[in-house]
Amino acid sequence: MATRTQRRRVLRISGAGGSADYRADLLAVEEPLEIRIRGTPLTVTMRTPGDDIDLAAGFLFGEGLLSPAVDLRQIRMCDENVADVTLEPAARPGDVARATDARRAQRNFLTTSACGVCGKERIESIRVRSRYDITADPVQVSPEVLASLPDRLRDAQRVFASTGGLHAAGLFSADGTLLVLREDVGRHNAVDKVIGWALREGRLPLAGHILLVSGRASFELVQKASVAGIPVLAAVSAPSSLAADLAADAGMTLVGFLRGTSMNAYTGTHRLSRT
Amino acid sequence: MATRTQRRRVLRISGAGGSADYRADLLAVEEPLEIRIRGTPLTVTMRTPGDDIDLAAGFLFGEGLLSPAVDLRQIRMCDENVADVTLEPAARPGDVARATDARRAQRNFLTTSACGVCGKERIESIRVRSRYDITADPVQVSPEVLASLPDRLRDAQRVFASTGGLHAAGLFSADGTLLVLREDVGRHNAVDKVIGWALREGRLPLAGHILLVSGRASFELVQKASVAGIPVLAAVSAPSSLAADLAADAGMTLVGFLRGTSMNAYTGTHRLSRT
Repeated sequence: MATRTQRRRVLRISGAGGSADYRADLLAVEEPLEIRIRGTPLTVTMRTPGDDIDLAAGFLFGEGLLSPAVDLRQIRMCDENVADVTLEPAARPGDVARATDARRAQRNFLTTSACGVCGKERIESIRVRSRYDITADPVQVSPEVLASLPDRLRDAQRVFASTGGLHAAGLFSADGTLLVLREDVGRHNAVDKVIGWALREGRLPLAGHILLVSGRASFELVQKASVAGIPVLAAVSAPSSLAADLAADAGMTLVGFLRGTSMNAYTGTHRLSRT
Repeated sequence: MATRTQRRRVLRISGAGGSADYRADLLAVEEPLEIRIRGTPLTVTMRTPGDDIDLAAGFLFGEGLLSPAVDLRQIRMCDENVADVTLEPAARPGDVARATDARRAQRNFLTTSACGVCGKERIESIRVRSRYDITADPVQVSPEVLASLPDRLRDAQRVFASTGGLHAAGLFSADGTLLVLREDVGRHNAVDKVIGWALREGRLPLAGHILLVSGRASFELVQKASVAGIPVLAAVSAPSSLAADLAADAGMTLVGFLRGTSMNAYTGTHRLSRT
């Protein structure tokens, strides 16, 4: 199992008097992961080691570079910090070609149009299209279940409790059952690991499921959820304007500020069941 | 002035009984900014509009693509979401060539070596070398001053108070005077905006200064501070392992968990003055 925390010597200063003493502190591990396509570097992401195959698979799927039917045995670790995707070009030439083209772009947005990212076209120009339509997903989720999810996530997050340095993403069924939890110094990585796990398990699209993230909801996270067919995204903190825009456009239910028994629903409120 | 918040209609659900009503909510604006070098797209970053020239300048400087003497009038907005850097090739051919090469890489790491990012070379392979040596920076900072900085930053953060969706970065002198505050949905952008401001003001290197960030301290943020010559980086939350490694290597003082009168000093404790 990959090391997710490291012990360090730290000078702890506390109190108005400034008492100081050295003690041990646990830090979340951050290491670069290089993702390659048949040996050619595609991107580097800073991540917490562990579930690296899932991370690479989830990242590539989220960028529209893998089909749900991909054989994940074609992704292997060729070093502790290098994941190589050895997809056969005969099998999926389009994927490889697109992945190679994508090298010129960057992590979050693999295509930027020459006409810029202005005005009404701004979402289209940076968006990765989902192959799943979540608009028609009939799932109903009760606010009581949603309100229970952050505690369920935190209970499952032992590492978070010890370092304070890891974001978490959890995939739940509509009745609040936790299916998988992944943690990372990068919240996008935690989501990639969850979606990569689901891809490996043959569970895509994730119709009827809820994705909970421990922090804020950005455009990037809504996009990753959309590409995986997830109808409900809940965040402990605030969404951004573009996250709400994309959720509305994709037909996703977006919930933010999920704290205690309260929450804000920004889009897709028809999925929130009322008793 | 760019719009940094947008008003949205939101369904607020609260209390065990699940009372629900529609109300207005302010969201932090997230929009893509495309950075171009003489018309050629280099990268796209998701950011909160405002101080975009500073953001482009700070980003490019942090990646080692601009010299401190650059004429920032050569960066102009050619659209509300597109910043174009029109550096003259005769003046700085190396910069443009490197920027163009960098297109194949991505936001955080503009060079990934063919030999991977493994083992002891991992920092070197992703690191942007600073032109400033901060090891010898003699500045002394008192824990009392450090402890006062988060409140000073929050007092100055009106937008944060209203949306809960923005990261902040503040540049302080050693006596705790706030020089500049920048906010963004992306913490790296907030830091780029601060450093771009300092570049424009002719203040680089930022010897003797403190950079405070509202969230966690990642490798990326330590690197940006290092490239700008900042000797002290303080974070309200946890640093990562690689952030502490790079801070140690660069001779930087790294403080985390800066809350109330308490803090953890991970590296460079010799700069913390004791009364």
